[in-house]
Parts: sequence; structure tokens; C-alpha cells
Amino acid sequence: MTDEANTPSPSRRALLAAGGAGLALGAATGAGAVTAARTDDTAPVADTGAAVPFHGRHQAGIATAVQDRLHFAAFDVKTDDRAALIDLLKEWTEAAALLTAGRAVGEGAYGGIPEAPPDDTGEALGLKPSRLTLTFGVGPGLFDERFGLADRRPEALVDLPKFPGDNLDAARSGGDLCVQACADDPQVAVHAIRNLARIGFGKVAVRWSQLGFGKTSSTTPDAQTPRNMMGFKDGTRNIAGNDTSNLAKHVWVSEKDGPDWMAGGSYLVARRIRMNIETWDRTSLKEQEDIFGRTKGEGAPYGKRHERDEPELRAMPEAAHVRLAHPDRHGGAMMLRRGYSFTDGTDGLGRLDAGLFFLAYQRDVRDAFIPVQRALARRDVLNEYIQHVGSAVFAIPPGVADEGSWWGRELFTGKA
Amino acid sequence: MTDEANTPSPSRRALLAAGGAGLALGAATGAGAVTAARTDDTAPVADTGAAVPFHGRHQAGIATAVQDRLHFAAFDVKTDDRAALIDLLKEWTEAAALLTAGRAVGEGAYGGIPEAPPDDTGEALGLKPSRLTLTFGVGPGLFDERFGLADRRPEALVDLPKFPGDNLDAARSGGDLCVQACADDPQVAVHAIRNLARIGFGKVAVRWSQLGFGKTSSTTPDAQTPRNMMGFKDGTRNIAGNDTSNLAKHVWVSEKDGPDWMAGGSYLVARRIRMNIETWDRTSLKEQEDIFGRTKGEGAPYGKRHERDEPELRAMPEAAHVRLAHPDRHGGAMMLRRGYSFTDGTDGLGRLDAGLFFLAYQRDVRDAFIPVQRALARRDVLNEYIQHVGSAVFAIPPGVADEGSWWGRELFTGKA
Ligand code: HEM
Ligand code: HEM
Repeated sequence: MTDEANTPSPSRRALLAAGGAGLALGAATGAGAVTAARTDDTAPVADTGAAVPFHGRHQAGIATAVQDRLHFAAFDVKTDDRAALIDLLKEWTEAAALLTAGRAVGEGAYGGIPEAPPDDTGEALGLKPSRLTLTFGVGPGLFDERFGLADRRPEALVDLPKFPGDNLDAARSGGDLCVQACADDPQVAVHAIRNLARIGFGKVAVRWSQLGFGKTSSTTPDAQTPRNMMGFKDGTRNIAGNDTSNLAKHVWVSEKDGPDWMAGGSYLVARRIRMNIETWDRTSLKEQEDIFGRTKGEGAPYGKRHERDEPELRAMPEAAHVRLAHPDRHGGAMMLRRGYSFTDGTDGLGRLDAGLFFLAYQRDVRDAFIPVQRALARRDVLNEYIQHVGSAVFAIPPGVADEGSWWGRELFTGKA
Repeated sequence: MTDEANTPSPSRRALLAAGGAGLALGAATGAGAVTAARTDDTAPVADTGAAVPFHGRHQAGIATAVQDRLHFAAFDVKTDDRAALIDLLKEWTEAAALLTAGRAVGEGAYGGIPEAPPDDTGEALGLKPSRLTLTFGVGPGLFDERFGLADRRPEALVDLPKFPGDNLDAARSGGDLCVQACADDPQVAVHAIRNLARIGFGKVAVRWSQLGFGKTSSTTPDAQTPRNMMGFKDGTRNIAGNDTSNLAKHVWVSEKDGPDWMAGGSYLVARRIRMNIETWDRTSLKEQEDIFGRTKGEGAPYGKRHERDEPELRAMPEAAHVRLAHPDRHGGAMMLRRGYSFTDGTDGLGRLDAGLFFLAYQRDVRDAFIPVQRALARRDVLNEYIQHVGSAVFAIPPGVADEGSWWGRELFTGKA
């Protein structure tokens, strides 16, 4: 297993190929509990273009090329039984490996016995894997007295401070656990979260969830940069998924950062940022461009011609978003942004409840999100048009190395 | 212009081709007000595979092969000035023709003068037309005393009765106008509704809107039938988009149905149907199948082997959904279903707020939706797992025949 890639083990590959051929492997495969393939048709399930390997040194869904759609869920843990929680994490891991391979959970949606509820809810039957990734995290609440993990809480997993202008809704904030489901087909992402929630019934409950309909950032700089709901290209300057040097420097927790169980992991900040769409839409083009310090059409930084030209901060207004957020202002700190646009209908006043569901992965929030957001919250002219209404922070453990392992194993069983 | 197809006029084609080449046509083209193309790249905008023609005898978005994603908006009309409303409908029509062709509104997102807000909000720049269709309708409220239209209200545009079990939220029901935006890319659908809402600022306000993330029915029987959130194939027996005989019989209002202004139009019923996902997921496979009278895997009707086999109603339980809804029980009445799955996060109790946003087009709701829903509401075993929480009905005028015409012209200017 290399550091860079989430490569499937040969046995896994073989299972997938066999599943694709429609064989019922159920009992034969032992621990893997591999079952009915999701597709009814003859297309092979293990379409390499369409499935992202689940196992690896790091979790998929971080450096992975950003998929089109998101379903993100934060869970409260309802049990205080450590063994029950561990069982759940094992079950989740097994299900996640199947789901990301484009397969159904357990005996599938119409296997098993007719007198029992099907193991899988079925709405993804016949759909492709759609590059589904499931990324698992643990929030500060997991380190309270319940599970004997208090001395394992990473120092970097701080409770975020209250920033000026924060207007956080507790019902859309926090969570003991999280799962980020990204896929190119939203039905695949929704199906995955729903089936994990179902497996967790009685032990965990969804605290809040967020659908994202369009990516607002890219980790593949060669592709066209997506636009956010303000109409601007977003993610121009981001950490690319193949930029191993910046990933190592700014995203992955190293062995020496500690704690041990986090090596190869990362920290995720999620912020639900609502936009005052209607006010923004009445703002002049010049003002809009001044706010970011970039042009709207090309996305070029002020004073330059092309999107990918190096920003020249002094050419931008003092309080331009890019000027304030730029690494040069924060000791070189960078984060990997992976946010999505959302629209959750209309509020009571006929205004679109829309904005950016901001997701950023980083090696230490104290060096990255917190100082940057502090600078933005104080001075960013963008603040007139946005409001942070939800917030959460999670420690993202390293990847599940192989089929014998499970989400959070290092946390529960390894060294502190 | 034929009855079947929404064919673009040659002049329109030429404009699109020119726009694709990146020419600034602005002033030169007269009434069409054609402007900056949406794409920054060199791909031609008029990719026939990806744009659905806007003009035609019928509105697109009904018989059109169902697109993957939906944004549906219902509007309240805030003005009582008839001329202002007509102006808006003309502006909307012009914008809709551009948007569905994959183009930006007006001068685009960064044309025009820097001191003014851009005409287009810009988040669809660079995206393909994505088969966007915009389908316009008028609700019962438009026929009150404000606009002098009282004597033009179609008899078929009845207020829906209250059905047993209805638990309707007024804030998610009704509306004077509606626009259904369907596209294969949700960002394109969201962008279209947002820009129409913006054009209407001060005259109309969004009353409610609904995002649909996955289609739950198909009008192309050769394609794989999509599955709804209960995991069942949905839309197996539906009116196909090329089935001109059933479209004429069950979907399009004919000349002799009256009123004149509705000939070539249709009626739309929208119902937001929430599913008790968690309860459903604990129900046995057999019970689930009994509820629909079809198998979950293949989707075959009870007593038959294949999805497309003719249902044999007596082989199904008395109160099975398909048995109750089948045309044989309702004098042969059919409707064209075009619903979408939704997930709007989680309710306060940790339950997924998910279900089916039911959309059905029909020639007369009194012969189709109302009797069928009456039968379902009284007896359908499915009712244990669903709840109707939003409702609206709209008259869908015929298509905009050519560039000189506009949405609702027949209603405002033609014969009653
Ligand atoms: C609705 C809220 C936000 C919007 C609309 C937004 C939009 C943008 C845009 C358009 C850019 C320029 C293109 C690019 O380089 O990606 C950008 C850059 C950036 N943003 Fe934001 N952003 C938002 C919130 C945030 C937050 C909360 C943070 C972190 C606390 C953040 C951190 C950054 C960083 C680090 C850059 C890159 C700066 C550089 O290296 O030049 N943004 N943002
Ligand atoms: C959440 C609510 C609903 C669900 C989950 C649902 C699901 C289904 C399914 C799985 C089928 C069988 C496959 C097919 O032929 O399409 C079906 C058929 C049908 N449904 Fe529904 N449905 C719902 C609500 C409604 C409503 C409100 C109506 C109309 C009032 C309706 C009318 C029909 C009709 C007409 C058929 C076709 C019957 C036939 O020709 O065999 N459904 N539905």
C-alpha cells in the first residue's frame, strides 16, 4: 500500500469482478460479507472509471477529484456503550466498502427472506458507483466521559471560537460523528447516508444533514473551475489532489504531529454559509469584483490577466476576500477547500435559502481555518452578503488500510 | 411548426451558432435581444444533443424525456397592475428562450457596464444547456379580480378538494404562477429559477420552491426505469413522450375542451409527499411488495414475470397502490407522471425529510388526479408510510409558438 494512492487489494478487485458477473458470493467469501451486486444489468460493477477505492493510507473524499454532488450528515451518538459503538463502526466500514464499490448493503434490496426488511433500501439499484466516497470523522463530543477516550482527544481538535458575525443555529452545528458522502450522482450519495443512518438506528441519530447540489471548488486545476452561487470561479487557488507536497505539508497529519492514531488523517471544518442572494444580485459588477479582488468573467486576480496568474495582493482593495485569505497573510497556511453550493428552498420571506456549504481539510485548524476566518470575520467586505449559520469541526482519522480494519480502529485500540 | 416537435426556427438556429462563435450580437439582432453566450470556451453553444428547443406548439418539459434534476418554484404575484404583469411575462419568455439555449440573460454576467449589477447572476457560465426546460403555469389565484381574467378561468382549473389524510402546509402550497425547471445539471436549473425570480423582483415573489435530486419517473420506456426513495421502480406504466396518441387523449387540452387559450396546454398537479423513511425501512420485503402489487427487484406486477408485463389487478392485494391507481379503475384515465425525489435535510427528530415531489400532467384533473387520489387517499396501504404536505394545481398554457410570442399571451389577449 503506497502513501499516495488508495489502491484496492487484489482480493478486493477479484470480488468486484466476480460481483460484476452477477455471481452470488454471499457465504463463500468469509469476512468480507460480499453480497448481491447493485446492478441488475450486465454492465460490470467494477468500472474503474466509476468506483473510487475505499481502502488506503488516507480516507478517500479528501484528495479525490471533487465529485459533483454531496450529502453530508452529522450524527449524535445515543449509546454510551463503548462496545456497541465499536460494533457500529465495524458495520459501517463494511457497508461503506460495499457502497463505494457500487454494491448494495448486506443481502441487498431484495435478497434475504421476504419476511424481513431488506438489508438495503434499494433506491441505488442499477446506478453506477458514481465515484462515491464516504469520509468518516469524529467530533469533540466523542471525547467526553462516555467512551473512555478523553485522553485521546487531539490537541488540534479544538472547539472553534465564536467569530464576529457568527449566527449559528445549534440544530445545524456540531455532531459526535460525521460522514461526508460525495458522488457524481446525488441519489448515490443520499442512498449511502440513509443506509448508514439505518444501520446505526438506536445507537446514533442524524443531528443534521446537508445536500450540496454543485461543487464550488476543484482539486483538479486542469479542469474548468466551478462557479459558486455568487457567480465567481471558486477553488482557483486550492491544493490539488495530486500535489503530494502540499498535501503532506497542509492536509495530512504527520506521525510527529500526534496523537498517533491521527497520523495520515486530517481535520475538517464545515460551515453552512448562507448568502444574501437578493442583495448580492443588486450589487454592481465592479463592487462584486472588488469584494473578491478578482474579475468575474475570467477569474483573474486584479492586476493580472489570467485566472491562474499569481495574485498580487497590493493590486486588490485592502479588505478583498482573496487578499485577506491568501497564505502570505497567514504564515503560508493553506487548506484544501471542498465546498458545495446549496439551495434549501425559500425562507418565510420569499428569499432563496442558498449559499455555500464550506468544507475545508487541514493539518491543524489552529494554523489554518481559525486565523484565516478570524481575519475574514473582522474585515472581509464579503460579510455584508453572507452569514455563517452552521459550524462543526471533526477529526478525520487515517484511511482504513485493509479489509480487516475499520473506521476509528486506531482511536479505540491503538496508542494514544 | 408541427404538432409533435418543438423545432427551432431557422433564425434562432443562426443566432445560436453565431453566439457560439463568441460574437457580441447585442444591438444588431433587434427584438431577440441576443447577447453574450454563456460559455467561455470554444464549444458551440447550439449543441443539439444538449439543448431542448424552447418554441413549439406545446411547452417543453412535459413530453420531453425526463431530465435528472428539478428546481420548481411557485410565485405569488405582488402587483395588481395588469400591464406590469404582461411586461414581466414577456421578459420571462425572452430570458427563458436564452436560458434553455444555454445562454446568459441580457448582457450576461460580466457584459454591460461595471457600475451596474450584471444582468445574469453568472453561476451557470461555462455549463452546458443540460437539456434545461422551463415550463410555465398559472394558478387559480391569477383569476381573481386583479387582472380582469375572472371569466377566463378554465372550468378544469378547480381548487383541489381536501383528501383524507392531507396535512398540507400553506407555506408549501398554492401559488399564482409556477415555473418548473428541469435539467440534467442542478446548477443550471437553480440558476434559471433564480434569474427569473430576480427579473420578477417587485412584481412577483417566490412563495415556495422545491429541489428534486433524482427523477422518479420516466417518459422513455426504453431507458432504465428510475427508483423512488422506497426503492421501487417508478414510472413503469406512464405515458411515453413519443406516444402521441395517449398524449392527445390524456395530456394535451384539445380545441374543443375549451377555453380557447388553453388548446395545446395541460394541467399540472404538484404534491409534496413526505415519506416515513424510517418506518418504511423497517417493513418486510413482502409487505413492501404487497403495498405496490409489484416486486421490488424486477418491478414485475404480481402474477407476472417482467416489469413491462400488463398488470393483472386481481393478482394484487385489494388495496395495493397499483391496483387502486390503475386506469381500469378510473374509466381509463391516465396522467403523465414526472415527479422527483427530494431530501431536504433532517427534521427536528433526526428523521430524514425526504419523499416524492409528485408532478402529474393531464388534460383534466377532474378525470385523472382527483378520482385517482380520492381512491388512494381512502384505501391505499401506502398511506401508512406517506403524508401529503404540499399541494398546488396550475393551468399550463400551450407553448410559445415563435419569438414574437410570450408565456400566457393567449390568456391575456386571445379569445376566452
Ligand atoms: C460564502 C463564503 C465564501 C465565498 C463566496 C468564497 C469565495 C472565494 C473565491 C471566489 C475565491 C477566489 C478563487 C479561489 O482562489 O478559490 C476564494 C478564495 C479563497 N477563500 Fe473563500 N469564499 C468564502 C468563504 C471562505 C472561508 C470561510 C474561508 C476560510 C476561512 C475562505 C478561504 C479562502 C482561501 C484560503 C482562498 C484562496 C486565497 C488565495 O490563495 O489566493 N473562503 N474564496
Ligand atoms: C409517495 C407516493 C407514491 C409512491 C411512492 C408511488 C409509487 C408508485 C409505484 C412504485 C408505481 C408502480 C410503477 C409504475 O407503474 O409507475 C406506481 C404506479 C402508479 N401510481 Fe403511484 N406512487 C405515489 C403516489 C401516487 C399518487 C399521489 C398518484 C396519483 C394520484 C399515483 C398514481 C399512480 C399511477 C396512475 C400509477 C400507474 C398504475 C398503472 O397504470 O398500473 N401515485 N406508483
